[in-house]
Amino acid sequence: MTQCQRIVLASRPQGDAAPENFRLETAELPAPEEGEVLLRTIWLSLDPYMRGRMNAGPSYAPPVEIGEAMAGQVVAEVVESRDSRLQAGDIVLAGIGWASHGVAEARLLRKLDPELAPVSTALGVLGMPGHTAWVGLNDILRMDSGETIVIGAATGAVGSVAGQLAKRAGLKPVGIAGGAEKCAYAVEHLGYDVCLDHRDPGMAEELAAVTPQGVDCYYENVGGDVLQAVLPRMNDHGRIAVCGMVAWYSAGGGGEALTVPGIWRTILVKRLRVQGFLVFDHANRLQPFLDEVGPLVGAGEIHYRESVAEGLEAAPEAFLEMLTGGNFGKQLVRVGSDP
Amino acid sequence: MTQCQRIVLASRPQGDAAPENFRLETAELPAPEEGEVLLRTIWLSLDPYMRGRMNAGPSYAPPVEIGEAMAGQVVAEVVESRDSRLQAGDIVLAGIGWASHGVAEARLLRKLDPELAPVSTALGVLGMPGHTAWVGLNDILRMDSGETIVIGAATGAVGSVAGQLAKRAGLKPVGIAGGAEKCAYAVEHLGYDVCLDHRDPGMAEELAAVTPQGVDCYYENVGGDVLQAVLPRMNDHGRIAVCGMVAWYSAGGGGEALTVPGIWRTILVKRLRVQGFLVFDHANRLQPFLDEVGPLVGAGEIHYRESVAEGLEAAPEAFLEMLTGGNFGKQLVRVGSDP
Repeated sequence: MTQCQRIVLASRPQGDAAPENFRLETAELPAPEEGEVLLRTIWLSLDPYMRGRMNAGPSYAPPVEIGEAMAGQVVAEVVESRDSRLQAGDIVLAGIGWASHGVAEARLLRKLDPELAPVSTALGVLGMPGHTAWVGLNDILRMDSGETIVIGAATGAVGSVAGQLAKRAGLKPVGIAGGAEKCAYAVEHLGYDVCLDHRDPGMAEELAAVTPQGVDCYYENVGGDVLQAVLPRMNDHGRIAVCGMVAWYSAGGGGEALTVPGIWRTILVKRLRVQGFLVFDHANRLQPFLDEVGPLVGAGEIHYRESVAEGLEAAPEAFLEMLTGGNFGKQLVRVGSDP
Repeated sequence: MTQCQRIVLASRPQGDAAPENFRLETAELPAPEEGEVLLRTIWLSLDPYMRGRMNAGPSYAPPVEIGEAMAGQVVAEVVESRDSRLQAGDIVLAGIGWASHGVAEARLLRKLDPELAPVSTALGVLGMPGHTAWVGLNDILRMDSGETIVIGAATGAVGSVAGQLAKRAGLKPVGIAGGAEKCAYAVEHLGYDVCLDHRDPGMAEELAAVTPQGVDCYYENVGGDVLQAVLPRMNDHGRIAVCGMVAWYSAGGGGEALTVPGIWRTILVKRLRVQGFLVFDHANRLQPFLDEVGPLVGAGEIHYRESVAEGLEAAPEAFLEMLTGGNFGKQLVRVGSDP
């Protein structure tokens, strides 16, 4: 038996998520059975979509149950293997959740090559967030050279990759982020031509000023006031990829001037295409994404930034901070030491 | 000089459009110049989109100015031609608006063949509404055999064609219309498997009952309560073609339980594609539409129904009635006699 620490959902949020919704507990793990491996977590990924899992009710994935470990991806070391595909010491990507250890089926794990890039990138720039950015730009928005694209949460795990890929493809990327420091970083390191601060009360007017040709593509991660500012700037036949809406995951998310008839009318009059997507539907596009972006990351041509919280017990606070934009870069939790 | 009667926009609506927003007046028409023809209107088409033109402010087409004739398409007879392409007695489709006569450039007119089908069909089943239905199904929704499609305003000029084309393509069309008579007609004549009355307070529950496999395609003509009932029934990866929203062209259009964050979340979680379109962008698809649907109409395989108001002066009342669902079938105004 292995002792395992994990963070479980203690209660469902009433409005904003709060520390009391989480509980750290210790559990005993069974030994791996045939075809399984025992894993030791090195890195835990924190992602905005996890907020949705904390609510009851139907969504694209079942909610986390009360008392169950929070769901999520980790980079882990194989401690013991009962499958020929993996051996002790291998580093893998696994979905064992907010936990120090886990037992998983070997066939569901992706083995990582530490020579290609730091293994933590499998949770960020070369993981689900990067894959999401790439699918949104190429398959959903079908970005085209010369177009203007607005990207919300520009310095987040998805937006930071999206800005750079859009710029490399010849678009004019306009970022929106929270605070002067993030905006400066977006322009300096992430390929954005300009980045606006969504906390600035004049943001909508500034957006109009920096998009003289209007907006062809909107990569929606935010909702709220950002959506409200972007919609009037959309060009005819514009596209909106709905990837997330972090402002609306909690109460008071802004966008109060938006109405349903108004949005519907804008979609009609401007002939917009608004398309929601989840990267889980695009597993067949993971390898093309890795083939294109992996070498760029390896060569240092794609910039990424990680925000690291120390220790599994720090995960709830880091997660709550991320939801309000308090983090900077891909949010990770260092759960265990490197091999 | 030719005396011409026309209906002009007397004032912009405050809330609902009303009779006093229109005025019948008499004007003198200049003689046609080189390349032009003088036209005598036989049929005037009334269409929901005209309501949008009565408002000030930007839309996909400029608003009708106060004192200007209401815009619209007519079927007219050429009275005098100063262009080699047309001669007196020819019947054409023209955009001269709500008027008994007009002068138009011959190169902008489409000559109709009275042998193929009654010329009034060029304003309905074989005109802009039929073309709209065909583009929405084929190019926007990309309908597929076996799918369930919901079509709002099922017996309207667009919906009546859409239901029949969807049925012929192997879909299960569910109509939504106003009143028992229209619903019965939709099932009996328009190919709908079932048609629900949007005035029925239990409509949302009935829709759930008649779409056990969910809804793959929604042909949106209505908005309001109909959209509110359909959204929860949409299947993952469903498509919504936003073609109109007649319930929201005036005040009190329903759909009060809809919220912008709620719609955005549905688009994301169900990975919907919501796409607005205007048939004017799809002129290159007119001929393929006519090639497919023209012979079907000629052979009596596509059913259509016309609602005829007598005399140009009857146009405002007929138009206002149409906006509240008081008409039944494609709304026409008989402005002049057949040749």
